[in-house]
Amino acid sequence: MSLLVVGSVALDSIYTPSDKRENILGGSAVFSAFAASFFCPVRLVGVVGEDWNPQHTAALGKQGINTEGLEVVKGGKTFRWTGKYFDNMNDRETLETQLNVLGDFKPKLPESYRRSEFIFLGNGAPSTGLEALDQLQGPGLVVADTMDLWINIAIDDLKELMRRIDGLVLNDSEAKMLTGELNTITAGKKILNYGPKFVVVKKGEHGALFMSEYEIYAVPAFPTESVIDPTGAGDSFAGAMVGYLASQGKLDTETIKKALVYGTLTASFCVEGFSLDRFQEISRKDIDARLEIFRNITQF
Amino acid sequence: MSLLVVGSVALDSIYTPSDKRENILGGSAVFSAFAASFFCPVRLVGVVGEDWNPQHTAALGKQGINTEGLEVVKGGKTFRWTGKYFDNMNDRETLETQLNVLGDFKPKLPESYRRSEFIFLGNGAPSTGLEALDQLQGPGLVVADTMDLWINIAIDDLKELMRRIDGLVLNDSEAKMLTGELNTITAGKKILNYGPKFVVVKKGEHGALFMSEYEIYAVPAFPTESVIDPTGAGDSFAGAMVGYLASQGKLDTETIKKALVYGTLTASFCVEGFSLDRFQEISRKDIDARLEIFRNITQF
Repeated sequence: MSLLVVGSVALDSIYTPSDKRENILGGSAVFSAFAASFFCPVRLVGVVGEDWNPQHTAALGKQGINTEGLEVVKGGKTFRWTGKYFDNMNDRETLETQLNVLGDFKPKLPESYRRSEFIFLGNGAPSTGLEALDQLQGPGLVVADTMDLWINIAIDDLKELMRRIDGLVLNDSEAKMLTGELNTITAGKKILNYGPKFVVVKKGEHGALFMSEYEIYAVPAFPTESVIDPTGAGDSFAGAMVGYLASQGKLDTETIKKALVYGTLTASFCVEGFSLDRFQEISRKDIDARLEIFRNITQF
Repeated sequence: MSLLVVGSVALDSIYTPSDKRENILGGSAVFSAFAASFFCPVRLVGVVGEDWNPQHTAALGKQGINTEGLEVVKGGKTFRWTGKYFDNMNDRETLETQLNVLGDFKPKLPESYRRSEFIFLGNGAPSTGLEALDQLQGPGLVVADTMDLWINIAIDDLKELMRRIDGLVLNDSEAKMLTGELNTITAGKKILNYGPKFVVVKKGEHGALFMSEYEIYAVPAFPTESVIDPTGAGDSFAGAMVGYLASQGKLDTETIKKALVYGTLTASFCVEGFSLDRFQEISRKDIDARLEIFRNITQF
């Protein structure tokens, strides 16, 4: 089945302790759509400005991503984010955010997208997610990613969104912030009271946890030393996870666990390069080869 | 096979956000010996003072732990540690340390202990570990636990110890401190250059990593909300891990991975009570029941 991905499309400028890149392709929708595309057909909804290089659209199309829903705003500028990573490559600082066309983004789902069975709302304003859901026809499994920013400045929209989605994805610190709980498991379970049927807590280099009323699954991260640029790792994790669920069209125990594993493995490729650099070098076969290594690392 | 455990025996006073206990049984040797005793016969080497309650010795003996190597110093006082946990139950502050008899501790291995095939040097001064190793007859697999204190104040002894052991166990922050590396995997691999054939990096609520020249294994922690007192969790993890290795008498892939799992599961019981409270309520059967739950949580 297809996966509909709604989220930000960005031009990022990234400073790491040993390197830098300016105006490279990024954004939650881009990373998660590309990650999902290793597993299922993907439909992208996002917005860019006149400064957008059509070669980016071509690169997404080459990967089989449907970009009919990518709106190009005449006279507008694409969302830009500038960030700097500290020596540990985990902590980062935002140096500049230019919302540009993302500030007024009203997602417009092309007619052909409206009957999507799997929907991923990438990190972005909760109101954007709500507007996308309003345009859907028929039922679908909806998973949304969120972050501290929206917990701080758009909690009412986020609460409404949580009542309308099936799964929420967020970092462990954000799960604690959202619930006021100090234990990750307690925080995750509490989020289930807000609406989602399941919660996926991302823990970066420590992996991820899946929680529903009667289930809990844990997956460590793929151990890696080769961290070039962590930008988009969380988006890639979530995109690959939901992409795998869409590819299977079911939500049984084995499928969910394997989706978590594919999420962590796909994210482990993402961090091995800037932007989509590493993703553009690999195929599903490379992810499956890493799956066999991961099996040896984690299965007893 | 038997496991020889050398380390501290303490009377702890513990303050948590919701409770407190004074002068309760603790220490690296006590937690790791008790954890190991679920898997193999254990021989304990440690030192206490005249204030020691013989009922503690009886409690260890009841669990099948050989306490012939527990020295009682006439006129001396047992090592005491007072600590306070913060609201997140992960971070803690040491309020008071009274080394007492531990300050002059020269481990004395009873004749019957000297041919131990598996040796665990619980967290303590590296010089204590070296003195214990000098008394061993014949080869044995030696695993040592260490911490930031010894990296800071006894690095030369620690370096000598690392050249004489097979495995080192330490926290991720300590692995980074010891090596000056910022990536956990890079830090772990670098420690292999210092002497140990394998390194186990403990990550608390995030589980643990095992690394040798050609291997890497990762295990998440058992997800738990019931954290009453985390004191001794790391010692219990290491003790159970080495205890399981001793019970199997081998170091193949499957045994190592299962040892890591038993380590994390045994530690998950440790934190469910103060001191040995929870350990004294359970048996190997309870740990194996949790193993089946853990299998469902982590095996895909």
